[in-house]
Amino acid sequence: MDYNSFRDRQPSTAVTVKTDVTFTLHGEDQTTASLLLAKDGADYDTIAMTQVVGGFTLTVTPPTPGLWFYAFALGDGRFLSASMAGLGGPAQIVAELSQVQPYQLTVAASFDAMPSWYQDAQIYHIFVDRFNNGNQDGRVLAPKANSFLYGQLTDDPYYVKDAAGEVVRWDFYGGNLAGITAKLDWLQQQGYTALYLSPIFEAASNHRYDTADYFHIDPMLGDLSAFKALVAGLHQRGMRLILDGVFNHVGRDSRYFNAVGHYPTVGAAQSPTSPYYDWFTFKHYPDDYASWWGVADLPAINKTSQSFHDFIAGGPDSVIGYWTGLGVDGWRLDVVDELDTAFVTQIRQLLDQYPDRVLIGEVWEDASNKVAYGQRKPYLLGGSLQAVMNYPQRELMVQFAAGQMPAAAVAQRLLTMQANYPPAVFAYNFTSLGTHDTERLKTLLPEAAQLRQAVLLWTVLPGNRVIYYGDEAGLTGGRDPQNRKYYPWGHEDAATMALYAEATHWRQLPALHGAAAFWTFAMEAGLVVVRQSAAQVVVAYFNPTNGALLFSPPAPATGLPPALQELLPTVLVQAHDQVLQTFTQSSFGR
Amino acid sequence: MDYNSFRDRQPSTAVTVKTDVTFTLHGEDQTTASLLLAKDGADYDTIAMTQVVGGFTLTVTPPTPGLWFYAFALGDGRFLSASMAGLGGPAQIVAELSQVQPYQLTVAASFDAMPSWYQDAQIYHIFVDRFNNGNQDGRVLAPKANSFLYGQLTDDPYYVKDAAGEVVRWDFYGGNLAGITAKLDWLQQQGYTALYLSPIFEAASNHRYDTADYFHIDPMLGDLSAFKALVAGLHQRGMRLILDGVFNHVGRDSRYFNAVGHYPTVGAAQSPTSPYYDWFTFKHYPDDYASWWGVADLPAINKTSQSFHDFIAGGPDSVIGYWTGLGVDGWRLDVVDELDTAFVTQIRQLLDQYPDRVLIGEVWEDASNKVAYGQRKPYLLGGSLQAVMNYPQRELMVQFAAGQMPAAAVAQRLLTMQANYPPAVFAYNFTSLGTHDTERLKTLLPEAAQLRQAVLLWTVLPGNRVIYYGDEAGLTGGRDPQNRKYYPWGHEDAATMALYAEATHWRQLPALHGAAAFWTFAMEAGLVVVRQSAAQVVVAYFNPTNGALLFSPPAPATGLPPALQELLPTVLVQAHDQVLQTFTQSSFGR
Repeated sequence: MDYNSFRDRQPSTAVTVKTDVTFTLHGEDQTTASLLLAKDGADYDTIAMTQVVGGFTLTVTPPTPGLWFYAFALGDGRFLSASMAGLGGPAQIVAELSQVQPYQLTVAASFDAMPSWYQDAQIYHIFVDRFNNGNQDGRVLAPKANSFLYGQLTDDPYYVKDAAGEVVRWDFYGGNLAGITAKLDWLQQQGYTALYLSPIFEAASNHRYDTADYFHIDPMLGDLSAFKALVAGLHQRGMRLILDGVFNHVGRDSRYFNAVGHYPTVGAAQSPTSPYYDWFTFKHYPDDYASWWGVADLPAINKTSQSFHDFIAGGPDSVIGYWTGLGVDGWRLDVVDELDTAFVTQIRQLLDQYPDRVLIGEVWEDASNKVAYGQRKPYLLGGSLQAVMNYPQRELMVQFAAGQMPAAAVAQRLLTMQANYPPAVFAYNFTSLGTHDTERLKTLLPEAAQLRQAVLLWTVLPGNRVIYYGDEAGLTGGRDPQNRKYYPWGHEDAATMALYAEATHWRQLPALHGAAAFWTFAMEAGLVVVRQSAAQVVVAYFNPTNGALLFSPPAPATGLPPALQELLPTVLVQAHDQVLQTFTQSSFGR
Repeated sequence: MDYNSFRDRQPSTAVTVKTDVTFTLHGEDQTTASLLLAKDGADYDTIAMTQVVGGFTLTVTPPTPGLWFYAFALGDGRFLSASMAGLGGPAQIVAELSQVQPYQLTVAASFDAMPSWYQDAQIYHIFVDRFNNGNQDGRVLAPKANSFLYGQLTDDPYYVKDAAGEVVRWDFYGGNLAGITAKLDWLQQQGYTALYLSPIFEAASNHRYDTADYFHIDPMLGDLSAFKALVAGLHQRGMRLILDGVFNHVGRDSRYFNAVGHYPTVGAAQSPTSPYYDWFTFKHYPDDYASWWGVADLPAINKTSQSFHDFIAGGPDSVIGYWTGLGVDGWRLDVVDELDTAFVTQIRQLLDQYPDRVLIGEVWEDASNKVAYGQRKPYLLGGSLQAVMNYPQRELMVQFAAGQMPAAAVAQRLLTMQANYPPAVFAYNFTSLGTHDTERLKTLLPEAAQLRQAVLLWTVLPGNRVIYYGDEAGLTGGRDPQNRKYYPWGHEDAATMALYAEATHWRQLPALHGAAAFWTFAMEAGLVVVRQSAAQVVVAYFNPTNGALLFSPPAPATGLPPALQELLPTVLVQAHDQVLQTFTQSSFGR
């Protein structure tokens, strides 16, 4: 008997509750077969399958949302199991139930609508201090006490830490909101339709993930009118704004915790009578408290503090309500894994009061089955996040281009993502090749051919492309802080700029939009990606090897529909090169 | 028998060659006595003294300049020796020649003239990066690559060092020459008549002791026209300019060594054919070279490189010639101990080509007998330095005010300095209570009464007062870099400002000018300083103790002339207080 989850489950993707899901087994060597089906965390139910010509079939209708896990029991006492934990694809036969690796079936309460502006948005991710200073004379706005400003914008970032590794002076280049506004025409010309900004609320650090005041633009970035000017400039151009929402922790030096007493409010560290006292968890008042990863500068928010949840998302006067009312089009939730499920839902419910808003989460793993603090996170099952940062997709794109992940593994992982995520999530995930938390792409892939392969693979895969500022200009750098250099105005790397422009050009093809149909398979060491829209097919052949590869017409095992199988010719692809072919409707039937 | 070098040698100070020096012993318990007199480094000659009523006497006439050391042999086989090595004052009797501590007699080739402007100049010592930025908008001129600028001028200085303790980013506040020029009226109002600036030539660091180009004003400080404007502004006001001459080492990143290749010249580290190659000493070319105190950033100059000496002081086009020709009135030679004697003489000979220039050396010990690298430094014996930084005087002033040095020790040390230095050197030494190389005075003496005592003692002692910028404004701080905070414009400490203004006011008294006659003695735990000019006597009584002190009229043992002994009344001085009395000519004979 055999089973391939990508082929033999219909639908092969995530479903909504009360959708019929049909499983088919192929083979005639068994007299009976059963589906082993378990709701997340429960034991398997055994459901007999119906014998049909060539195998067995069964249709089930999941009644409740959540993850379901399944495998198959055969009449001879053996089992059909996924061949690798967490991955879909062809099954293997195992002798013992204890050896079974189940497949995942994602059952959502609903599939969330995705605002049309977000579908295929070209998003530019700006680390605000490092992008552009709107002051013509280079003056840095409102430098903070006990901070350093870089002598020149071309300086490499440097952490000023003491012997214990603590940052003792934060370092700034002086990028600000007016600097972004001044570049809106340029950004639009580059093809970007939305900006995702690193946090912009008042904070002590240059990254501003240590919020000090959620209702105040950091003075180094500008004031409220600078913010409004940016929003107006974006919206005039049909562009959108996504902010970074950091709601898991605040700064020690904040209006809320106020450990240093910089703020006139009574902070939680100052008195138990503080209105913010219940936001935090003190082991010993006031100096020993729960903090993010033990970083004393970042006191963690008590996850179940309803007063905090309401402060952030309690209505139009809450943090998210206020800024969304001013025109913020979307929020990216920092460390969403660590937020209480009900809190994320509350945020989403607030955003639903405003038209066309989007809510995206930072998740580093497969977000469809992420477990955090012992709890399965249901944020993609409807009424919560609309998409996540697809770091696993980044990882496989980079590793494939670097020659570190075989094409077959890449295909299997991509198809597993396609199967696990609700279709629109997979189509429109927030998909970067680099962020402020990763090495620069050009540092990971110093050879031009590798860089090109990664960028073009990214371009033909589903997921919204999010370009980390400066990647397109050829910035290099290892992890933080070297991945946060200032944008090299006037010193951009022309070849990299041309590559990104070419990729953006390709991405305009209808068949490369996020929701276009997607297939992928390996052909020897090469990878093939096929995309199809109503009137167009794009086929991309990637050769990550040091020699030429001949891609034959695809076999049925690739999972491609017969019409597409017939369409694809034999293609020779040179070492570390790729070929993109476009077929329009009229050529389909040749 | 007894002998007191302060009383029984005439002159009791340094002399020029071929001056008669008379020694007198008091007592009638010996039948013979001899002077033991040795030229520096030689054995004693024994010269019989003449018996007179009440003791012995002898006059000698030192034929050559240098240090002479002396003691006395008595008829009974014992000796009269100084009671403490290196200090003058009353002798003690010792039994063995090996126990003898000789007294010092300084014999100069000549006593150098001191420009009249320098006599009693009120000198303000500016660490240029930290004083004032001449740009109204606070813009920092020409920030260097890979440097940090402070976020706010009130920030505390911070060294950005790596784990190995090496400075990896230099930090700047942005003080510049135009900032000094903008404050000239203010400086004049404060009573300053000369400025001593930390190095201003191009360099990588904020202190600029790592010269990169001796012919170029550091761009962060301004350009040549800013320099000329400063000189013109000073001279228009009758004020003078002293520069810091750093000629013992240069920067690794300099036009001369050029280890990083930043300069278009061929540096010594780049090729042995470099015109600067012989300035340096390579142990292994090019990466192992002699450097100042092993600091790799500061390659040391080969002390005997005539090409370097000529580059610095070879004529009007040399470094010193060029800048002196542009109006520099004086030079302070950094680490003068480490410079070749002939080089310092060459500098002085060049300066003598210009009217009224002054040459001052940085010496941390008694400069009259300093030994460096096994050689006695003759730079105060004529034709070389005119004065030195009197760090030993600073030390005793601070320690006395802190209650850490008894009055008797203070008096003995001061009188020894007076005896060892040529008179004008002692009168006009460059005398600071703090510099960029010491803790801030207010940090050493946090109690207002102590600070006041040190400042007033400084004011009544000989030596040109050099005020380290910000000391008068109440800046605090430990050693480098905390002693280099930015001047606290608008936040000066009013009490300290008033103290310094009062001291400057006192200093206008003729009897407190450098060359006025000077006596000092202890009276129990108190210290008395007596100064006399043609028409004025000032007597200052200092009580460093926690209780009131009664100062009686002085006894003959104080060394005061009888007329002055008679002048001084009984004075009660409260704890940690001082009394200054002024007598004018008409009152002398009361």
